[in-house]
Amino acid sequence: MIDLETIVTAHERISKIVDDTPFSYAPRLSEQSGCEIYLKKENLQVTGAFKIRGAYNKIASLSEHERSLGVITASAGNHAQGVAMAAQIFAINALIVMPESTPLTKINGVRYYGAEVILSGSNYDEAYAYAYEYSQKNEMIFVHPFADEAVMAGQGTIALEMLNAIPDLDAIVIPVGGGGLISGMASCIKQISPSIEVIGVSAMGAPAMRESFEAKRAIDSLSVRTIADGIAVRDTSPLTLGHILDTVDTMVGVDDEEIANAILFLLERQKLVVEGAGAAGVAALLHDKLPHLKGKKVGIVLSGGNMDVTLLSIIIEKGLIKSGRKMKLTVTLIDKPGALMQLTRMLQELNANIVHIEYDRTSTSLAYGDANVRIHLETKGEEHQAQIRSSLHEHRYLSSEEN
Amino acid sequence: MIDLETIVTAHERISKIVDDTPFSYAPRLSEQSGCEIYLKKENLQVTGAFKIRGAYNKIASLSEHERSLGVITASAGNHAQGVAMAAQIFAINALIVMPESTPLTKINGVRYYGAEVILSGSNYDEAYAYAYEYSQKNEMIFVHPFADEAVMAGQGTIALEMLNAIPDLDAIVIPVGGGGLISGMASCIKQISPSIEVIGVSAMGAPAMRESFEAKRAIDSLSVRTIADGIAVRDTSPLTLGHILDTVDTMVGVDDEEIANAILFLLERQKLVVEGAGAAGVAALLHDKLPHLKGKKVGIVLSGGNMDVTLLSIIIEKGLIKSGRKMKLTVTLIDKPGALMQLTRMLQELNANIVHIEYDRTSTSLAYGDANVRIHLETKGEEHQAQIRSSLHEHRYLSSEEN
Repeated sequence: MIDLETIVTAHERISKIVDDTPFSYAPRLSEQSGCEIYLKKENLQVTGAFKIRGAYNKIASLSEHERSLGVITASAGNHAQGVAMAAQIFAINALIVMPESTPLTKINGVRYYGAEVILSGSNYDEAYAYAYEYSQKNEMIFVHPFADEAVMAGQGTIALEMLNAIPDLDAIVIPVGGGGLISGMASCIKQISPSIEVIGVSAMGAPAMRESFEAKRAIDSLSVRTIADGIAVRDTSPLTLGHILDTVDTMVGVDDEEIANAILFLLERQKLVVEGAGAAGVAALLHDKLPHLKGKKVGIVLSGGNMDVTLLSIIIEKGLIKSGRKMKLTVTLIDKPGALMQLTRMLQELNANIVHIEYDRTSTSLAYGDANVRIHLETKGEEHQAQIRSSLHEHRYLSSEEN
Repeated sequence: MIDLETIVTAHERISKIVDDTPFSYAPRLSEQSGCEIYLKKENLQVTGAFKIRGAYNKIASLSEHERSLGVITASAGNHAQGVAMAAQIFAINALIVMPESTPLTKINGVRYYGAEVILSGSNYDEAYAYAYEYSQKNEMIFVHPFADEAVMAGQGTIALEMLNAIPDLDAIVIPVGGGGLISGMASCIKQISPSIEVIGVSAMGAPAMRESFEAKRAIDSLSVRTIADGIAVRDTSPLTLGHILDTVDTMVGVDDEEIANAILFLLERQKLVVEGAGAAGVAALLHDKLPHLKGKKVGIVLSGGNMDVTLLSIIIEKGLIKSGRKMKLTVTLIDKPGALMQLTRMLQELNANIVHIEYDRTSTSLAYGDANVRIHLETKGEEHQAQIRSSLHEHRYLSSEEN
């Protein structure tokens, strides 16, 4: 357990740099989950994620001499930005090692704070190995993304702010990857209000820490795959695992589909961009992974908002189909003038907006003289789609649907 | 000018219902615009927009008898939700008239608060006419979306909160449609700190109030067309125009392209979903419509976040192309086995991700034996696209680009 005093000191250090982000009631989510839910909006934090807290506290806790050596880390994500920004504030050198495939936006996000970027390795583990070796050879301070007490203490400051704002929470839900965030926060919570249930949520595609928690020993994964890249950690750190076994009450997993639904929910209902890792807690509540919380007062950490808009656009598209606001149809027509007009007139009468259309008359499944039209429609929900289906049926169209 | 006391009274009334939304520094926007910018995040307000302020204040200012008659309004947007929620709090009847084409999500958004919905008219003006006539015939209280002093006073409370948080602003930038928001806010600002410049931003596609401001007389538009539906008002209200001529210093216009850029900027940089109307102020700053503000301390109102995710998805897609993160190519190949493989191998070596592909060999512009491949690529920016172009050239591919 990280000492409460260490976390309080961290909070004093970071609070001139870091925002006490909004922690506010979420009416729709409360209604939908049957809990009284408050969201801690660390996606609105400086750098778009909580990681600046730990990174800044780490660098602030170094000696003048250590700082003069410069800092190095491996990360393509929020930790990289946190280290870069903290280093910039202290006007020291920062070197960030990123995998070679890192998108330019992430590289630029770090360069913006004046850090130097090295691209090395085909995945995170290789970048990490390179960075660690580099730090040893060149005598730079390695800032670990989670397995470091000063980093964990910095992340733990979120719990201080939450308990300060709403002391009588019944449970706090926290995303878990490497376990730095939950180690710091749970340490803080258990020293202030031990009766508050601390719940970790990990991605099903990156289950190392959850499995380790259940087995009470470090279990690594063979590989990780999840849209929640902020918690896509393959190996379990014995350091964070130790803190987690001491302080965390419950761990659950959510899959990518559930995470995507939570991202879309937060976008539509809360007007917030929250990345996959950040939405894990909301995913657990929306998908009833924590039924024992019904009627309880629950705080959820939205840990960050740094999501690629390309992924966001895919999540929106799939979400529109799942929620009945988009429909993909293939309709078979007689291949003659006027046939398409009849179909589109029927759709216009049904108030369905055509957003994509393709015409194919060479599919081998077609009778000669027939053609297939693939149509994407904007629809108003399940009821509207049912109307469209029954109208197609009435007009004797052969049709099928894609998901 | 609305009396300051009226606005202060409104604030006392609404503050148990309405959030004092975050008003916080925007580092990237400040840097990009050369101003010191703070954003008032009314998109995070209850109901997702500021309109609850005016609607609640109006209903709260009615007599018991008036309230017992029930309220009615015409709106397909944020005002409808504001009236519905306020009526629910007072446990009175609310009737919302919406145009027939209103999307189901907006209808449900209002029904959620227990209001009754009538669909009438093929556009807003027809819905408005129906609602007004209905209110007269059935003796219900009509809650105008802007041309009402109690509504304006409610909206003006935003300025109280902003000046309370940051008293030394040089300018405040406010979206303008019907003019209720800016009338209330400017009245408040000019009575507290007359030296603060009040700037209105309207959509180029809905210029009535801006043109009226310039001409100093009410000018109506023939039609409106903008993605900022929250400020898509056709006719100028003499009531709000009077207040605006009294209190507003400057008015500028932004077009849909600029608004879309601002929406994407807020999504990526601020992690916020802001609707078209809400992003108008940021659009003006991003696109240098207010060059005299350089170096000044500026507050911008993000008035709401209720945007259709379908539109959001289109804005993201177009934004990706504009910012060099997506590329649409047509490449001419020799129509034989292996040709496509050679092209895709080249693209793989360039680290360009193919997200859409179509093969066409019947275009009349093609030589016999050739085929066109339309490819959409995910790219890493302008530099990466230049690499792809030069590699295509080197390999002697004929290619063209779409925007």
